Amino acid sequence: MSAYVVSLADIQAAAARIGPHIHRTPVMTSRILDGLAGRALLHKAELLQKTGSFKARGALNAVLSLSEDEAARGVVTHSSGNHGQALAWAARARGVPAAIVMPTNAPAAKRAAVAGYGARVVGCAPTARAREETARQVAEDTGAVFIHPSNDPRVIAGQGTIGLELLEQAGGLDAVIVPVGGGGMISGIAVVMRAAGVRTFAAEPAGADDTAQAKVTGARVTDFVPDTIADGLRTPLSPNPWPIVRDLVEDVIVVDDDAIRAAMRLVWSRMKLVIEPSSAVGVAAALTEGFRARPGMARVGVVLCGGNVDLDALPWGGDRIS
Amino acid sequence: MSAYVVSLADIQAAAARIGPHIHRTPVMTSRILDGLAGRALLHKAELLQKTGSFKARGALNAVLSLSEDEAARGVVTHSSGNHGQALAWAARARGVPAAIVMPTNAPAAKRAAVAGYGARVVGCAPTARAREETARQVAEDTGAVFIHPSNDPRVIAGQGTIGLELLEQAGGLDAVIVPVGGGGMISGIAVVMRAAGVRTFAAEPAGADDTAQAKVTGARVTDFVPDTIADGLRTPLSPNPWPIVRDLVEDVIVVDDDAIRAAMRLVWSRMKLVIEPSSAVGVAAALTEGFRARPGMARVGVVLCGGNVDLDALPWGGDRIS
Repeated sequence: MSAYVVSLADIQAAAARIGPHIHRTPVMTSRILDGLAGRALLHKAELLQKTGSFKARGALNAVLSLSEDEAARGVVTHSSGNHGQALAWAARARGVPAAIVMPTNAPAAKRAAVAGYGARVVGCAPTARAREETARQVAEDTGAVFIHPSNDPRVIAGQGTIGLELLEQAGGLDAVIVPVGGGGMISGIAVVMRAAGVRTFAAEPAGADDTAQAKVTGARVTDFVPDTIADGLRTPLSPNPWPIVRDLVEDVIVVDDDAIRAAMRLVWSRMKLVIEPSSAVGVAAALTEGFRARPGMARVGVVLCGGNVDLDALPWGGDRIS
Repeated sequence: MSAYVVSLADIQAAAARIGPHIHRTPVMTSRILDGLAGRALLHKAELLQKTGSFKARGALNAVLSLSEDEAARGVVTHSSGNHGQALAWAARARGVPAAIVMPTNAPAAKRAAVAGYGARVVGCAPTARAREETARQVAEDTGAVFIHPSNDPRVIAGQGTIGLELLEQAGGLDAVIVPVGGGGMISGIAVVMRAAGVRTFAAEPAGADDTAQAKVTGARVTDFVPDTIADGLRTPLSPNPWPIVRDLVEDVIVVDDDAIRAAMRLVWSRMKLVIEPSSAVGVAAALTEGFRARPGMARVGVVLCGGNVDLDALPWGGDRIS
């Protein structure tokens, strides 16, 4: 019926596969945020997921889907962010080797986090080309399976499990708002929501609004220089998610960095949750005048996708704090 | 049998009284923190409570315990912190007037929070004497009932409901660690834990260690100048909690501000929870060498008592953020 790379059955299979190892993250609410949004918001707190972001789901589904032969050779990816940590964690969960390609100028804390999960950190020059080249080389040298952060169907199916849980937990849902970067998360969730008759909206930073543009022009934008604090959403939409986003995502709500910061602060102060800027993009979208004015949505899910913030920038009062 | 101001039955009655209005806050866990503590820590997330701290429980129990006549006259307290917000919220929940006495130099944000719940903010000079004097005057002028933040038995019973929930949620518990300031929270919880055969430990900042001293000398310390970032714990132990703390609290674990900051940062970064310094005191205590070395406690509850942090101090990147 559909030509999409993942089906609802794939996502249900992923849920069964990864369920024993991941957190069924809580859905949280705030009267103050509901007041500001003009409707009930159901916040799926993936910042409380293993490794601090939803990426644990897709990475683990990919790793657990490998054959014994593949698993023995291990996995490789390029990511200085949440997918890198998630794949390192997932590989350890199955006991297989992982190599994470990261630019040599990545923060030491991020390299340490990946190494802390027992993965091998492979340095490369800080360009997209060098990253891909290096990952390809590692795969060639070691036979490791490359796990793309947003284009791999096993990853997309894993992220879609957020949608299954949210439907079960929310007690009725009219729509969901999902931040979009590479599109792995929103495409998995959109497949679930379509089956449930729930509308899916994307939220995107103005400084990386390639998906909003693609929805208008009908063609993916692959060549742009992102400029946003939402570091998890700087990547362009991947090929496999694109048809799903094109067909099943109703609209893309674009928010600027000021709105992202304001939403982040609101969630920290009112919900007491340390969300990262990418998570705040969905909240900011729910609070826009444009979205508030849309009718017919009393209960809207919002995915708080991660909480991996660089706390070094905060005034902790001394360098004795580790 | 006991001469204490609250009994287990009082606390059970409080739970029934306030249950419909408060959050049954989640108990959260972290493998990383368990590793550092050398045992399983069950974190009772009262930062997610209404008004951002456990104080909502005691304040609401006090307000709901008033007779119709008393309720009509309203309530008054002096507090620039969580109890002030909590009492303002509780009064609104029952629809009775509240006056909160706050020093004129209290942060505008705190006054706004109290006013936001519809309470009257009464300014006073920034001394303990002026606060008490002003609150007494308001009570005299209006007939309002004074609700002390930690000495009022109705407040103590309300805070004790944390213990009831924690016992139900934790799936087995050998001990609890509870931050101590005025002692309203720990004394309520200790009564519950004694009945369940669970050990209770206090956690106290070194810069306000009057309870630790009292446990050694056998006499309350009322005259000291606190010096700690844990602003919620700067008050001396109150008279009514004292006999309970003296008899039912096994020991007081004292931690310095560096340890408090480190624990706060750990919880922000690893558990993604915005805890205030007073909450971090309990976590810091669990991580001390001394506590780690104590045998016979596989599962220890820790109360994350609140999350009301002044986020203005953080680098939000511009004053456009509200």
